[in-house]
Amino acid sequence: MSLQPLDPNFESRVHASFERQGFMKLIGARLIAIAPGACEIQVPHRPELTQQHGFFHAGVIGAIADNAGGYAAYSLMPADASILTVEYKLNLLAPGDGELLLGKGQVLKAGRTLTVCRTEVFVAKADKQTLCATSLMTLIALTTKVGQSPA
Amino acid sequence: MSLQPLDPNFESRVHASFERQGFMKLIGARLIAIAPGACEIQVPHRPELTQQHGFFHAGVIGAIADNAGGYAAYSLMPADASILTVEYKLNLLAPGDGELLLGKGQVLKAGRTLTVCRTEVFVAKADKQTLCATSLMTLIALTTKVGQSPA
Amino acid sequence: MSLQPLDPNFESRVHASFERQGFMKLIGARLIAIAPGACEIQVPHRPELTQQHGFFHAGVIGAIADNAGGYAAYSLMPADASILTVEYKLNLLAPGDGELLLGKGQVLKAGRTLTVCRTEVFVAKADKQTLCATSLMTLIALTTKVGQSPA
Amino acid sequence: MSLQPLDPNFESRVHASFERQGFMKLIGARLIAIAPGACEIQVPHRPELTQQHGFFHAGVIGAIADNAGGYAAYSLMPADASILTVEYKLNLLAPGDGELLLGKGQVLKAGRTLTVCRTEVFVAKADKQTLCATSLMTLIALTTKVGQSPA
Repeated sequence: MSLQPLDPNFESRVHASFERQGFMKLIGARLIAIAPGACEIQVPHRPELTQQHGFFHAGVIGAIADNAGGYAAYSLMPADASILTVEYKLNLLAPGDGELLLGKGQVLKAGRTLTVCRTEVFVAKADKQTLCATSLMTLIALTTKVGQSPA
Repeated sequence: MSLQPLDPNFESRVHASFERQGFMKLIGARLIAIAPGACEIQVPHRPELTQQHGFFHAGVIGAIADNAGGYAAYSLMPADASILTVEYKLNLLAPGDGELLLGKGQVLKAGRTLTVCRTEVFVAKADKQTLCATSLMTLIALTTKVGQSPA
Repeated sequence: MSLQPLDPNFESRVHASFERQGFMKLIGARLIAIAPGACEIQVPHRPELTQQHGFFHAGVIGAIADNAGGYAAYSLMPADASILTVEYKLNLLAPGDGELLLGKGQVLKAGRTLTVCRTEVFVAKADKQTLCATSLMTLIALTTKVGQSPA
Repeated sequence: MSLQPLDPNFESRVHASFERQGFMKLIGARLIAIAPGACEIQVPHRPELTQQHGFFHAGVIGAIADNAGGYAAYSLMPADASILTVEYKLNLLAPGDGELLLGKGQVLKAGRTLTVCRTEVFVAKADKQTLCATSLMTLIALTTKVGQSPA
């Protein structure tokens, strides 16, 4: 498997796409690091991001996992490709109890059409990081019209 | 499989739990219907809920799927149980292109410890509903301390 | 979603492919029914198909789920396409305790490249059928060289 | 997370369970290595284990992934516990084209009730190993009656 980006300007392309995501802004997510086939996103805790016990909501954890994997995959794609998540599976391993959520995506296999990523989500509390979720996901590169269904 | 709720007051218990979720408020989600083993949640479109093409973000779709399945499961549990999502797998079938997102959760199997649900998420645009995602998920009932990890 | 087969001879194509699978022969699987976007496969119980308690092994249940979904998808594909399973997620709902395993696959969404299926596996014991597993899977149509990786 | 086995005799317990699996015998699987929270299983190629192109059938790959993860989890459980796979998700990354299949399971989180494992399946051809599948799975320890449904 090659983790060579097809687009030398992958970093600015990933940042531009991230900036266009209203939802990432809403939850206060920051794109911390992007490298060929890898991505890290962080979300500081806020009461609006919680479930009924005050921990990070699984929906936030899932969104961060999805995006960290998605941009890890997107970093390797050609400049004119758009990307869609085909599916993902997320295991929640510990409560999202902490001040900061860290989602790390890593490409396992980059194909011409499909890319498979693994993501790990950590929650940081008083300088201790705990693995709170892990996911396995499939993404598709579309070189046709943007926003089209995976068809 | 019995879809008899163990708690006759399941409706008010579900509503109370939903109200405590800051994240549901943040994304403007409404608990539309709750029945034994079934739940429906809706989210109207807002620019803050979008991905880079202006459609509902997969993170919102996943959060709605997770919660619709979670409350479908929770409706059947005893009054003193708390619930955690163990894992879910989500397939995105069509872009979230529309004015309203509708997440419907249905219990497939309710066990003493584990419950398995299927959820379907539709997006409505000009009175036409399209299935945009489906998930299969596992939840655990905890009768011990609230918010504990699935252990 | 259209469940129109692109190949009018889909039935004979599916049967021919099934016959070439040494593993289906090994476990005694029979292709019972094939229709556009749907497939049923059955496996009679034999001691060689069991786990440590004498029930159908999860590996057999998973193989039947995979194949029932795979041929449901394959029935809709063009005559020159080959098919690969991209991924699947299987929930085991009840022990495989019975004389006969029945796997039923149903296409949820058929795209040009990707197809998503749901499968249900039942186990029959003394005329009673129990849902013992369900899966959600993604398949890819390849119109290039047979047996290639999903790339 | 502790990867301390609760049963000092875990190795013989795992081997005894493996030997009782008729299906592992049928496909010629060998339990190669067992350690606390880790397991490796191998399957040599035979025509009876193939799909329509002569490669290892996804059903065999899935069965090996399931068992490698299952025994990795089982190694950590108490002596009187039985184990059931709750669910797994498998991504197929490359065709199972080779002489030997190697399934490696690793516990990610071991809880009192639930255990989460990751498995990787490699295929070896002429001394080169290729990652052909990876899975993420959830298992449950039952201390009640053997063979019971995850309830």
